[in-house]
Amino acid sequence: MVRDMISLTPEIDRQSRVPLYQQLYGYIRKQIEDGILKEEERIPSVRQMSSYLQVSKNTVETAYRQLLAEGYIHSRLRSRLCVFPIETLASSAVGRRQIPEGLTEETKVRTAVPAAHDVIDFEYGDVEKDKFPLKRWKQCLTDALNDHLEEVVGYGDRQGHKGLRTEIAKYLYQSRGVLCSAEQVFLGAGTQQMISLLCQLLGLSGRVAMEDPGYNGVRTVFANHGYEIVPVPLDPDGLSAEHLRMSGSRLAYVTPSHQFPIGMVMPVRLRTRLLQWAYENNAYLIEDDYDSEFRYQGQPIPALKAMDTGDKVIYLGTFSKSFLPGARLSYAVLPESLEAEFKKGQQVYSQSVSPLIQTATYLFMSRGYFEAHIRRMRKLYQNRHRTLIRAISEYLGDRVGVIGEKSGMHLLLDVHGRDSDELLEAAFSHGVKVYSPRIQWMNPEECPPTYVMLGFAGLTEERILSGVARLRQAWFGESSSI
Amino acid sequence: MVRDMISLTPEIDRQSRVPLYQQLYGYIRKQIEDGILKEEERIPSVRQMSSYLQVSKNTVETAYRQLLAEGYIHSRLRSRLCVFPIETLASSAVGRRQIPEGLTEETKVRTAVPAAHDVIDFEYGDVEKDKFPLKRWKQCLTDALNDHLEEVVGYGDRQGHKGLRTEIAKYLYQSRGVLCSAEQVFLGAGTQQMISLLCQLLGLSGRVAMEDPGYNGVRTVFANHGYEIVPVPLDPDGLSAEHLRMSGSRLAYVTPSHQFPIGMVMPVRLRTRLLQWAYENNAYLIEDDYDSEFRYQGQPIPALKAMDTGDKVIYLGTFSKSFLPGARLSYAVLPESLEAEFKKGQQVYSQSVSPLIQTATYLFMSRGYFEAHIRRMRKLYQNRHRTLIRAISEYLGDRVGVIGEKSGMHLLLDVHGRDSDELLEAAFSHGVKVYSPRIQWMNPEECPPTYVMLGFAGLTEERILSGVARLRQAWFGESSSI
Repeated sequence: MVRDMISLTPEIDRQSRVPLYQQLYGYIRKQIEDGILKEEERIPSVRQMSSYLQVSKNTVETAYRQLLAEGYIHSRLRSRLCVFPIETLASSAVGRRQIPEGLTEETKVRTAVPAAHDVIDFEYGDVEKDKFPLKRWKQCLTDALNDHLEEVVGYGDRQGHKGLRTEIAKYLYQSRGVLCSAEQVFLGAGTQQMISLLCQLLGLSGRVAMEDPGYNGVRTVFANHGYEIVPVPLDPDGLSAEHLRMSGSRLAYVTPSHQFPIGMVMPVRLRTRLLQWAYENNAYLIEDDYDSEFRYQGQPIPALKAMDTGDKVIYLGTFSKSFLPGARLSYAVLPESLEAEFKKGQQVYSQSVSPLIQTATYLFMSRGYFEAHIRRMRKLYQNRHRTLIRAISEYLGDRVGVIGEKSGMHLLLDVHGRDSDELLEAAFSHGVKVYSPRIQWMNPEECPPTYVMLGFAGLTEERILSGVARLRQAWFGESSSI
Repeated sequence: MVRDMISLTPEIDRQSRVPLYQQLYGYIRKQIEDGILKEEERIPSVRQMSSYLQVSKNTVETAYRQLLAEGYIHSRLRSRLCVFPIETLASSAVGRRQIPEGLTEETKVRTAVPAAHDVIDFEYGDVEKDKFPLKRWKQCLTDALNDHLEEVVGYGDRQGHKGLRTEIAKYLYQSRGVLCSAEQVFLGAGTQQMISLLCQLLGLSGRVAMEDPGYNGVRTVFANHGYEIVPVPLDPDGLSAEHLRMSGSRLAYVTPSHQFPIGMVMPVRLRTRLLQWAYENNAYLIEDDYDSEFRYQGQPIPALKAMDTGDKVIYLGTFSKSFLPGARLSYAVLPESLEAEFKKGQQVYSQSVSPLIQTATYLFMSRGYFEAHIRRMRKLYQNRHRTLIRAISEYLGDRVGVIGEKSGMHLLLDVHGRDSDELLEAAFSHGVKVYSPRIQWMNPEECPPTYVMLGFAGLTEERILSGVARLRQAWFGESSSI
């Protein structure tokens, strides 16, 4: 039930230099931490609150977003905001050797696990392994071998398993709003290999505009195919449309769902501008939607490809984040205008994904296991994400800024006034591996030296808590007894 | 036991216009067909025969090679030549609806199988599927998932599974004389992908000399990476060393073990000349050893890489022919001079072969299953090869020439005075698919129109016999009642 407005009475000081949204955020957070707002209790809607406080909806939304990002509240059934089951995370930072209880089942079960000296690795790209649906995957592999032997022994369809392409097209429509046929879907062994095939088989412009910073793995493939890379700086919302216009390029690679590595989600108005650019310049956009399954705030924005009425977006997806890096399975959805050209070129190429993996993945999807897995992982990663955000807030406080925390499987820390080389070394000497995102910059020296990258998808909540506590010790010399 | 010389008395006519080797060949063949030389009976050695007949060893060798190629005799324990178990293949062509008996177990068992209307497909690239070691492969996959989950779920080593690379290095030393370390072995998802990586990661010359005709799949990849292709014509022994010298290239792609598609095996003296060329011009040779496991005449010649004292050969191997096309697993052995450069470039690339496939293949090799499988397949393909050669000889006779029949999983037919378009169409209308090798020529119009390509590895002996009988009907209007 919605709490009576009377009992939730934020004290808003309009004369204060503290922004209104931060006052509101601080008030609600304190109500939750003090146990006044109880677990699963509903928060007033944005409309109700803005009308009650006589502040703009925008102010309330910003406050709520921060509470969401930090895991104090969660969004249920799309619109109702509720308080998360919360325990005394704060208390764990003040001396008791105790795992904060009740965060999730996972945390409780694993209390005994951590060995003192094992390294906690915040490596980006890791996924949860212990909860991998091993039995189902094994069954799909076995069924593929038993019932589809002829198919999985040979080279397989050059474009990729037809049934799997059909499942992918269905999935993309349901989850990303992308309307395409199985004929437009092409399978490949990873995003880099798909980019390489695009370079090899399509007569694309030899100059590609790329977000800077942006995914180094793709930038290198373009460069190794002789492409000129035109770096486009980022605005707060993503790639700068202005700079793209000036780039003179007719091809751009973008990560609108979750900019890599900075992490912003591109708003719809900027997506529209990108599409306009493509239409006006007869250019193509490569949309790399690598981890769109894992978004923790608000409704997912449809893919750029879903908005593409002018047939100019090449969409890339992968199973590496959503399912299994070890499948080495990714796909491209080509615009109809490029489909025939790519297909023709591909007729001389063998498919590089093992048909066994393809058929097993087809069975895994068609039996509904894939969607069930995604749902489960989304929840799991959301818990880990929330735990990480809260641990950072509690243990590291305002000595660090958090960048790109709305979605995905990583975030950046801005450790004010420090240098990443020193930070990485100190962390490692305390049994934690964190990373510099430096190589994602076209010129690595332009990466702020204070940035550190943390992937969290492969670590349990309890390991995340320990890891951040160790970082506190490593970077600020303050012990946390966790 | 060796047959008494007295009872094997070839009548050699030194005045005849028929070459001596052909007289000897005809004599022995007749002795076998007439049942005078019995199954498994030993043939005199080359030395014995040449001394007995007072002809050169070369003459005897040529005759024996033809008998070997046509499946009349086989080589046992390296040096002893024996008569094959032979039955009345000839009789099957003269009217009885009967499968030639006793060729191998396989043929007998499958007598009842052929449906009148199913198409017999001589597609190159097919491998035997019914005898695939399914149980062992499934066990290796299951063990990989159960015992190495952490390893097979993630992205895997960028260079490829270390244990598998070690097994490959061992295998190459034993089977091909190639001495290399696991550090020089790099895994990839097929030969085309390895070629693409070589283009992307190494600062190779942008001009590559290629056998013409040669493997179109590789030529296309080079071209799609912007390489200039310099076609080098073939001499009877393989790529023309003279033309290579004039090519001005510092990179050449060759198939010395079994030229694709013509099928000659490059003799040692030409290999030496190729290496000399590489050393003198500071050039690299890419040796594609795609099907060297299946050689049916004489001792295998060591790989070019095994003779490479100057560190200039990039060796390519694949599991597609020897084991499982569906593994999509191949490898490159880099010379030490290129190893570091490739490794550095690869550090930004994800491995494209599924770690599950890699670990399972590692287990499959380390348990000895791979060698056992090769041995079994070598025998099986040798039987199929022999059956094909004999069927061609019996059913099609001297109206066709056979090209490249010493090894591998395919051969070419030269159907004198005919045109492949018409031949393919006629074959298909009689339920047989054969292929034109035309696309393997740089300029397809230079392919002799009389050439037709037959892959045989995926067909049972009985299907091969039916297929060739159908070709006789299709091309020459003569029925064979098989």
